[in-house]
Amino acid sequence: MAATLAFWYDFASTYSYPAAMRIERAAAAAGVRLEWRPFLLGPIFKAQGWTDSPFNLYPAKGRYMWRDLARLCARDGVAWRRPSAFPRNSLLAARVALLAAEQGWAGGFTRAAYRANFVEDRDIAQPEVIADIVAGLGQNAATVLEAAASQAVKDHLRAQSEAAMTQGIFGAPSFTIGDELFWGNDRLEPALEWAASEGVR
Amino acid sequence: MAATLAFWYDFASTYSYPAAMRIERAAAAAGVRLEWRPFLLGPIFKAQGWTDSPFNLYPAKGRYMWRDLARLCARDGVAWRRPSAFPRNSLLAARVALLAAEQGWAGGFTRAAYRANFVEDRDIAQPEVIADIVAGLGQNAATVLEAAASQAVKDHLRAQSEAAMTQGIFGAPSFTIGDELFWGNDRLEPALEWAASEGVR
Repeated sequence: MAATLAFWYDFASTYSYPAAMRIERAAAAAGVRLEWRPFLLGPIFKAQGWTDSPFNLYPAKGRYMWRDLARLCARDGVAWRRPSAFPRNSLLAARVALLAAEQGWAGGFTRAAYRANFVEDRDIAQPEVIADIVAGLGQNAATVLEAAASQAVKDHLRAQSEAAMTQGIFGAPSFTIGDELFWGNDRLEPALEWAASEGVR
Repeated sequence: MAATLAFWYDFASTYSYPAAMRIERAAAAAGVRLEWRPFLLGPIFKAQGWTDSPFNLYPAKGRYMWRDLARLCARDGVAWRRPSAFPRNSLLAARVALLAAEQGWAGGFTRAAYRANFVEDRDIAQPEVIADIVAGLGQNAATVLEAAASQAVKDHLRAQSEAAMTQGIFGAPSFTIGDELFWGNDRLEPALEWAASEGVR
């Protein structure tokens, strides 16, 4: 029986971007079932006393991240442009992704929204930008945006972000297989290996 | 001409341990010249407003690190035991390593001191423990400890820790090839690849 890997991501998170671009294909290749778990890092950072991204709060860490990400995207052949604003508000994108996950089109939406932020430098906080992405996936943008603004989706996202904290998640991307937590883009492959071997235990 | 990779490490740093255990062999295999650069993270953390390890300051991050490290050491076949005290004071070990680097026996000392802390759970802040390690490497412990306490070695370590900050280093292990910085145990292989290709540019 194939194990399940849950992929926890925030659309503002830079290192989540390269993970999001390859995870569906990588999980399929490993025979691992994938669950898309968009959530918000903001409340977790706030609970640690941070009111901004640690990459902004700690400049040396931030300078390194931008360089490291450009380097690793170049190595992996993933398109990359440093966005003109960071971090972008990811609330709307997360709500739409949650809805997309319920309806089975989270992969396409997630990749398109990350590309908008980190390749095309578009502001994913703007409803027009999200509407454009949603329409590009063949969905009815007006219907989706209305549903994403519903109390049910808002509550679900809040619950998902709380579940992230309960799982011990403190950054993104994170990957969980049951209680087993892996953190960081460079832990995607070890997490998939773990999930794949879990399935045969 | 082979490029040079500088390895920046603090003996209190958990993720520096698996890097230290394989770096000499890995650098030789990649045809990269290796420089041992022990330094102190404490002053860098203090400059960021931290008076303890971030793994102690941020409990979720700390819990994850202990689990992650046990997992990756098991995967890589590296012996590992969580030390009963963390972080241990690494000042004396860093001074001795600096001296060892000048004299050409940094590799053996570095591995033995990491093993003492992270496998044998010995307190590397104690002169007896360091003396024992030094003697085990065929060096005269009394002579080495006396030299490590000299003003010249103290000044050298202070200068090295300042140089780390100037290079943009904010954690350990770090690897530099000229101005190019790589951070983290999982960046050792990409750093070596960078250094190796640097040599032929």
